[in-house]
Amino acid sequence: MTIFGGIEAGGTKFICAIGAPTGAVDKKITIPTTTPKETMAKVIEFFKKNQKQNQFLAIGLASFGPIELNQASVNYGYITSSPKTEWNNFNILGVLKEIFNLPFGFDTDVNGAALGEQRFGAAKGLDTFLYITVGTGIGLGGIIDGKALHGLTHPEAGHIFIPHDKSRDPFSGICPYHKSCLEGLASGPAIKVRWQVKSALDLPDDHSAWNLEAEYLAYAIANFILSFSPQKIILGGGVMRREGLLKKVQLKTKEILNGYIKNKNILTNIENYLVAPGLQDESGICGAIALAEVAYQNSLIDRF
Amino acid sequence: MTIFGGIEAGGTKFICAIGAPTGAVDKKITIPTTTPKETMAKVIEFFKKNQKQNQFLAIGLASFGPIELNQASVNYGYITSSPKTEWNNFNILGVLKEIFNLPFGFDTDVNGAALGEQRFGAAKGLDTFLYITVGTGIGLGGIIDGKALHGLTHPEAGHIFIPHDKSRDPFSGICPYHKSCLEGLASGPAIKVRWQVKSALDLPDDHSAWNLEAEYLAYAIANFILSFSPQKIILGGGVMRREGLLKKVQLKTKEILNGYIKNKNILTNIENYLVAPGLQDESGICGAIALAEVAYQNSLIDRF
Repeated sequence: MTIFGGIEAGGTKFICAIGAPTGAVDKKITIPTTTPKETMAKVIEFFKKNQKQNQFLAIGLASFGPIELNQASVNYGYITSSPKTEWNNFNILGVLKEIFNLPFGFDTDVNGAALGEQRFGAAKGLDTFLYITVGTGIGLGGIIDGKALHGLTHPEAGHIFIPHDKSRDPFSGICPYHKSCLEGLASGPAIKVRWQVKSALDLPDDHSAWNLEAEYLAYAIANFILSFSPQKIILGGGVMRREGLLKKVQLKTKEILNGYIKNKNILTNIENYLVAPGLQDESGICGAIALAEVAYQNSLIDRF
Repeated sequence: MTIFGGIEAGGTKFICAIGAPTGAVDKKITIPTTTPKETMAKVIEFFKKNQKQNQFLAIGLASFGPIELNQASVNYGYITSSPKTEWNNFNILGVLKEIFNLPFGFDTDVNGAALGEQRFGAAKGLDTFLYITVGTGIGLGGIIDGKALHGLTHPEAGHIFIPHDKSRDPFSGICPYHKSCLEGLASGPAIKVRWQVKSALDLPDDHSAWNLEAEYLAYAIANFILSFSPQKIILGGGVMRREGLLKKVQLKTKEILNGYIKNKNILTNIENYLVAPGLQDESGICGAIALAEVAYQNSLIDRF
């Protein structure tokens, strides 16, 4: 049986699994993100154990970042300038390659999630779409004309700048680089600090916090629609699980665009255009397994 | 000799030319954009005359928009919802196809300019870069991983939303759809209305208008860098010809990003990262001719 290993490396937790190209995920485990030494030891232990039982053919790693994706760079495979200082300049791919003599796929966590959704979730059959995660951070991944979006480095679109009306929201934002960029105003930690609660989870569904949150996300989404012209946008991450938030974001995005983009998907069908992930919490790990499959196929081609 | 026809169809003027795949442009003429009937008659006359002398093999049309690029749509080849009402729902490609039995290339004016810059200008050898024009309108085109950016429709990124500090700039913006989107705040006509001058050209180089203009453009460019991670951004259009403006935009973009994108092109070499077009005013027409060449090559493939 053809099986692959996948790692969804997040800032809070790592998910490791073995899976098939059909999208079936097996033997999934969750490891807290502490230090590279501690966390990676557990990741390696998981795959070593499974390698004895199930001969998987490749491993896909979808990682939090920023990461170096340029294969020509000496830092290819590194987490580069993470705010998590212990993971700064850490060769996350290299550590695994030293142990496992297998083909490796490597991309951002959000591009991984986008790939997972394209294969098995809400983006089946699409070639140009975006995946946004709103949680501890805000991240953007995407497939553009069939290929994962990379460019010079990779998108860091959680940090885009949007209108911020200080007369209505005097909160100055928490981004250490930009203060009131999107992530500084609308990430989970920003909600927590603005409303002085222990967790964004403590705010009730009818709190005005969620109207403000919907507005900031809608401005960002409008910008992404105007810039990328995607066929669909998938909204994942912990903050988006809030009851009613997706609906608010849909309505606000349509209001902000104000009929400018004359496409029926946006004008009359936005509930099927801005959507929740089809794979719920498994977009990332399914995408990591898909990355492994692609790496395996490329390794077969390279042999000839 | 292999020659092609190109049309750069702009909101103010149409440029028609005959050119070679080497980038050499010949017999260029300029036609004012008035009514479709009047303007297209002159376009057709130009190519009919030249067809007798030089047997060109295909025509490329790079048009202002919004345009319908989806070949499966019954409106393929149309200018759809232009604010120029006479051009609304006008089958610009169809009118030409009726007269000339040749392969036609068709794309946005900004994607055309991007293609021209990739072939012969400032983006030689790059596969992921953006072309922005700042003039009567603000437009974004781009090549992403080797392909022109299309998606659901095509980018309309002149209309993205950026921070607007009304305490410093109380001007409410002129966009009929969004008031104070980028185009509403920073296009040539917006400058004219804000500062109550006959033309943005009347403002001296040292007027504070240009600092504000640089700031709005820098916010938009920072957003594009964070979203697309391009290898380079080319800034064209009439407003960008203002002495000193490009320099201001470079400095302000770097200041806004504040070291977040740890790439040397941005950190220490921004003057070679945000650049003027290599082809000056000819990016668009060269791109239109390149579109013709691609269409001709595709027609050869289709024959087999």
